[in-house]
Amino acid sequence: MSRIVDARAIDLRFPTSDQLDGSDAMNEAPDYSAAYLVLRTDDDTADAAEGHGFTFTIGRGNELVTAAVQTMAGRVVGRDLDEIAGDLGGFWRWLTSDSQWRWLGPDKGVIHLATAAVVNAVWDLVAKRAGKPVWQFLADMTPREVVDLVDWRYLRDALTPERALELLERQRPSRAAREATLRAEGYPAYTTSAGWLGYSDEKLARLCREAVDGGWDSVKLKVGANLDDDVRRCRIAREVIGPDRKLMIDANQTLGVGEAIEWADALAGFDIWWFEEPTSPDDILGHAAIAKRIAPARVATGEHCHNAVMFKQLLQAGALGFCQVDACRLAGVNEAVAVLLLAAEHGVPVCPHAGGVGLCELVQHLSMFDFLAVSGSMQDRVVEYVDHLHEHFVDPVRMAGSRYLPPTAPGYSAQIKPETLAAYSFPDGSVWTAR
Amino acid sequence: MSRIVDARAIDLRFPTSDQLDGSDAMNEAPDYSAAYLVLRTDDDTADAAEGHGFTFTIGRGNELVTAAVQTMAGRVVGRDLDEIAGDLGGFWRWLTSDSQWRWLGPDKGVIHLATAAVVNAVWDLVAKRAGKPVWQFLADMTPREVVDLVDWRYLRDALTPERALELLERQRPSRAAREATLRAEGYPAYTTSAGWLGYSDEKLARLCREAVDGGWDSVKLKVGANLDDDVRRCRIAREVIGPDRKLMIDANQTLGVGEAIEWADALAGFDIWWFEEPTSPDDILGHAAIAKRIAPARVATGEHCHNAVMFKQLLQAGALGFCQVDACRLAGVNEAVAVLLLAAEHGVPVCPHAGGVGLCELVQHLSMFDFLAVSGSMQDRVVEYVDHLHEHFVDPVRMAGSRYLPPTAPGYSAQIKPETLAAYSFPDGSVWTAR
Repeated sequence: MSRIVDARAIDLRFPTSDQLDGSDAMNEAPDYSAAYLVLRTDDDTADAAEGHGFTFTIGRGNELVTAAVQTMAGRVVGRDLDEIAGDLGGFWRWLTSDSQWRWLGPDKGVIHLATAAVVNAVWDLVAKRAGKPVWQFLADMTPREVVDLVDWRYLRDALTPERALELLERQRPSRAAREATLRAEGYPAYTTSAGWLGYSDEKLARLCREAVDGGWDSVKLKVGANLDDDVRRCRIAREVIGPDRKLMIDANQTLGVGEAIEWADALAGFDIWWFEEPTSPDDILGHAAIAKRIAPARVATGEHCHNAVMFKQLLQAGALGFCQVDACRLAGVNEAVAVLLLAAEHGVPVCPHAGGVGLCELVQHLSMFDFLAVSGSMQDRVVEYVDHLHEHFVDPVRMAGSRYLPPTAPGYSAQIKPETLAAYSFPDGSVWTAR
Repeated sequence: MSRIVDARAIDLRFPTSDQLDGSDAMNEAPDYSAAYLVLRTDDDTADAAEGHGFTFTIGRGNELVTAAVQTMAGRVVGRDLDEIAGDLGGFWRWLTSDSQWRWLGPDKGVIHLATAAVVNAVWDLVAKRAGKPVWQFLADMTPREVVDLVDWRYLRDALTPERALELLERQRPSRAAREATLRAEGYPAYTTSAGWLGYSDEKLARLCREAVDGGWDSVKLKVGANLDDDVRRCRIAREVIGPDRKLMIDANQTLGVGEAIEWADALAGFDIWWFEEPTSPDDILGHAAIAKRIAPARVATGEHCHNAVMFKQLLQAGALGFCQVDACRLAGVNEAVAVLLLAAEHGVPVCPHAGGVGLCELVQHLSMFDFLAVSGSMQDRVVEYVDHLHEHFVDPVRMAGSRYLPPTAPGYSAQIKPETLAAYSFPDGSVWTAR
């Protein structure tokens, strides 16, 4: 028996806006940030003495999320970990059901981001105690245990727990073969590093060339500020990567529905694989209208899709061509599992959102679990990869060319180095006090 | 010329959970709360020296919203009020477009609630400087000025600015007659005070009887915890109010789509006028499915509908029978105006959510403006009325029987008495330190 005895939330910020890394048409100057949580247990001798989790923001306001994480994490202090591990679904429902907190969402915005940090830290702890990385911990669960992770209240009209059980049972016999493939070959990725809006045409061309030389099969460009510029940039990118690699575009929500269709029409000649975040992330019917118009190109969205009810509807409406689940926008592992199941039921590939701070470290676990136990496929599936900030993690992602190798250390790969905490804590870390 | 020189956000909480006032199937013990904002100007001699605004929560977490209000309001300190008044639409877009803050929503949750407080306080100031209550200040704008209040980026596929202009122009010639009606007769209301879930059958029957005796034409019951109980309670209410008055039910989001249909079927014999918040407020397609099944009864929702993009879709999908716009869930007057225009275009009556702390005080302005300038009708339109906490306001709502009388004092009726601020500030007010 082991209890959570302390919770400490830390406001971490990286001054990424200095370099225009991560700039796009909506987010012109992000400072990649994390509301980071350390859960300490009374099990001081074990490898599972601490759990680490976080959620991701882009700067100002991270103090609100950190405050929310601290308050919410206070509720888990004193909880017994075996009890939590024995009913992770019940734990999630308990954590998200405080009626007064719920008013602030429900299930969205600052409190939902904060819930992600707490839930992810608890999963890190529980998986460490089991001695497994989260992807394996999940994949080793029985189908019934996986189904019980999910809050089905608002989802049953799209997927019943019984049908989810069938989906999971269907993948069981062939799982060992897939695990061997995963361990041998890794999981496919794509790169966004080439295409940020703040880069010049020359830098864009050079980075596309480097992507090709690095063995990447696909490249994603940010668009949405100016259509003429975007036509020129897509032409450059397509010329450099050639006709056989995949080209994706991402408007980061800048366009109205009619504008998005205008953009898609103008860029159709460049053989676009997916059009990401064409409009407001809340606009399910708008995404459906765009998806209908741009076929066979497909709509991708999810990094701002705030909960499973929204994903459910995107799938029901035929709006979603690629499901870009986010490990921190959703309220942690439980809700991400719900979305993987919904996507599998609708035959839509999951291509998680990553980048930011540590999102690659988290979502690799989700996609690997999806491959082993849910969809059973890597077809049309790629995890986003951005080569920023991995050096701050104790167990960073390991890439073999353009593929993620499965993490081997127990837990959720979420721990940030002590020296990073000291340097990038806001506003008192050495990086910030020096500015 | 006058500038905003100071902003002070206050965490106000009322211990309403003591009495089970406001209890329902989702919110079993709310402490009605406000993140309250005082904007001070350098115009010390005028009646418009201070602007007051707030957003509404139900207790825990109000500190997060208050912190967000304080930070966001800091951005308006130093701004010139004539400049703001000259471009209220531009002001709204500026305030909601900080890219780092936007990540925390976008346009939802804690930061959107906070935006409401700031925007509402600014409108209070601007209307006071014009010497008009907000309903009149809005109704005296030209159609072009009203259209320019709205951020159209994500709305044009449902309503163009040009079409909105037509809607507003259409109501101009007959406006004076409606204003005379409004001043003479007030605006119709309905009461929720009878039907909270925490009340006994006897208290329910007594309060329904009092509602009838008080001249109310309609009564709303909270449902959703237990179907047998709800059948019994609806029977009691219908017997007391008779066949000619309207009976509404409100599940406060507790049900899945299938359950909501089961509830609606079981309660159909009681001639339900509307079924409010049957399921997740995010579930547009679910609301549409329920609306289709329960016709001619209609679905009502809005108090948790977090922005105009969501209302747009509810209207596009035919999911919304009554549009329950909320003055604080939406980001203040500008976004509420957008929703009034969308509802008018779709022929859906606006019946604002109220109750809580001061919501009645705010939404009366919105419905009166809707009557004068947007829909031009009171048909099937009622503003919620709950008889709680009005005594804390400097200019509380004035009821004539079951009708709201138009406010006469300049501004948005949002000012809370100084003695209330002293007593109910959390956690240092006298009411809280005494507990």
